[in-house]
Amino acid sequence: GALGGVGLGLWRWQQAAMAASEGDEDEKEEEELRQRFMAPPVSGLRELRRRRRELRSRMELLIMETQGEVCRALAALDPGAAFAVDTWERKEGGGGISCVLQDGEVFEKAGVNVSVVFGLLSEEAARQMRSRGKSLKAKDGKLPFCAMGVSSVIHPKNPHVPTMHFNYRYFEIEEADGTKQWWFGGGTDLTPTYLNEEDAVHFHKTLKEACDKHDLKLYPKYKKWCDDYFYIKHRGERRGIGGIFFDDVDSPSKEEVFQFVKSCAKAVVPCYIPIVKRHCHDSFTPEEKLWQQLRRGRYVEFNLVYDRGTKFGLLTPGSRIESILMSLPLTARWEYMHTPPESSKEAEILEVLRNPKDWVH
Amino acid sequence: GALGGVGLGLWRWQQAAMAASEGDEDEKEEEELRQRFMAPPVSGLRELRRRRRELRSRMELLIMETQGEVCRALAALDPGAAFAVDTWERKEGGGGISCVLQDGEVFEKAGVNVSVVFGLLSEEAARQMRSRGKSLKAKDGKLPFCAMGVSSVIHPKNPHVPTMHFNYRYFEIEEADGTKQWWFGGGTDLTPTYLNEEDAVHFHKTLKEACDKHDLKLYPKYKKWCDDYFYIKHRGERRGIGGIFFDDVDSPSKEEVFQFVKSCAKAVVPCYIPIVKRHCHDSFTPEEKLWQQLRRGRYVEFNLVYDRGTKFGLLTPGSRIESILMSLPLTARWEYMHTPPESSKEAEILEVLRNPKDWVH
Repeated sequence: GALGGVGLGLWRWQQAAMAASEGDEDEKEEEELRQRFMAPPVSGLRELRRRRRELRSRMELLIMETQGEVCRALAALDPGAAFAVDTWERKEGGGGISCVLQDGEVFEKAGVNVSVVFGLLSEEAARQMRSRGKSLKAKDGKLPFCAMGVSSVIHPKNPHVPTMHFNYRYFEIEEADGTKQWWFGGGTDLTPTYLNEEDAVHFHKTLKEACDKHDLKLYPKYKKWCDDYFYIKHRGERRGIGGIFFDDVDSPSKEEVFQFVKSCAKAVVPCYIPIVKRHCHDSFTPEEKLWQQLRRGRYVEFNLVYDRGTKFGLLTPGSRIESILMSLPLTARWEYMHTPPESSKEAEILEVLRNPKDWVH
Repeated sequence: GALGGVGLGLWRWQQAAMAASEGDEDEKEEEELRQRFMAPPVSGLRELRRRRRELRSRMELLIMETQGEVCRALAALDPGAAFAVDTWERKEGGGGISCVLQDGEVFEKAGVNVSVVFGLLSEEAARQMRSRGKSLKAKDGKLPFCAMGVSSVIHPKNPHVPTMHFNYRYFEIEEADGTKQWWFGGGTDLTPTYLNEEDAVHFHKTLKEACDKHDLKLYPKYKKWCDDYFYIKHRGERRGIGGIFFDDVDSPSKEEVFQFVKSCAKAVVPCYIPIVKRHCHDSFTPEEKLWQQLRRGRYVEFNLVYDRGTKFGLLTPGSRIESILMSLPLTARWEYMHTPPESSKEAEILEVLRNPKDWVH
């Protein structure tokens, strides 16, 4: 893929020049979008405007906006550090924008990645992409597809600030007879090194509020899905204290699911940023840092052994490895037979990872 | 599984008491074996003596002896540290002995594990265990099996001392008609942080000599198999500079393959220990330590994403996770978009990992 390097600076400069030379309403709107995005969208602003009523355009704008919002909120908390912005292209169609802040004061590694890819899928690849494994009828064995999403993992330095992950994605596949299958997936989840009940409740409550606006059944269903999905089977524990997770959602309607996904995406900053603010100046001991590093090891185990997205990405030709493995922490540790003492703070979080709790009832 | 704790001390004490009270030739031989082993063998010395002519008994003695030899050689180089010895049992049949030295002066993490497990396999599990996927006829859908091996990963602290891995294993499966299928697998390979040609040549030459005693075709064949097996596909590079690797070997005869495996196992110490001695007091910079940590990250990627043994272990109910994941380094690091400068020492090793070399021709 091509590398945009620092990128943002040059793009801003070009925008300003363009904005000065044109003046209609559309241009003003475009200019506003540019201010909020980290780089030009993969499909181009003009193209997105042309097909503004299509869901894939609205979704691309949403993931771009989410990337911008989250990056700005994180950067504001870590003033010494800056996001490196890489734009990359996929030979087979599409591309992406990777924003990474590494080795900051507050964040050890924070990545927010947008990708918009399209092209042709084999029937087998299409089946794998769709978790429920619905059969898809291909023309000449190939299916035109479009997949887009925003995904992010934030690993803070301070062991009292939890790791956070979110991902919102949209797929379209066109069958031989021209019918379009579409579905959404996504979720937001928290991985603390130490349990803080207040934080856990705030996080889950904010997610529940986002879900409840759409359907009261969503939060309980997707909360459980999250606990089930992020299960590290060989350890008998979950990666974190959960949140919400859903995949392959295509009802009640495209518009309604999109509105739900939008609410979830808008909830990322209010879910997480207050928790970072509350704890990023907490003092911590070397022992607490060590426990964080061991938990980072478990994070790596989940992502490399179980995570569908990571595995799918590693096996897909032409995928951008650096963007996929951005989710791995800067540092991790594995000690043989490490077992925290009973009734310790370390045992407390392990207990919750083994037996997920309801945080908002 | 049960934990032997420090183990060795108590066992030695019991041996001495027993040796003093008995005096025939068999007891003398047993006593000699005890001195060389890290813990009592899973099958028991008496049982091994009873069926001493059977290959599985001779293989169990070989893997126990190899464990003892390697542990003693490593411990001699790291006098401040000691191996913790855990003996564990597998509910479904068999058990093992895990020896781990952690956070020593010379070694960051050194594990040498023996396991001897038996019981019944499903046809599917038997197929997976045998890489060539030969079909096996089961009685009532279940196949009696026995699997044993010694495996080890040594991660040194000094970035100028390479990581070394070896594994030698033996399988038996009994089919419905009573015929026994058997095969051996194994290998020894080196993963340096920086390339040292002299070390690479010494390592490969020692392996070649072990192979050449049996058949001149073995080293070239198993050297290539090793380069192919330890390939991190998503990175386009190998885990290390190779060595030998083979799997599913069942010809020319049980005895001949056993003798070959024995030569390989005996070559582990002469392959590796001179390299550790040569470099364990080399000075190194923080930058060299950082590069080592990034390479450790790749080691984790290979083991969790591709290694057949690790994947098989993680998915097998009743397997001992701590012994399987002993292979992971104490610490590892992932930096987004890390690329060493051209013509640097870091680029030099990458080049060899991308394009394996012949070291002994």
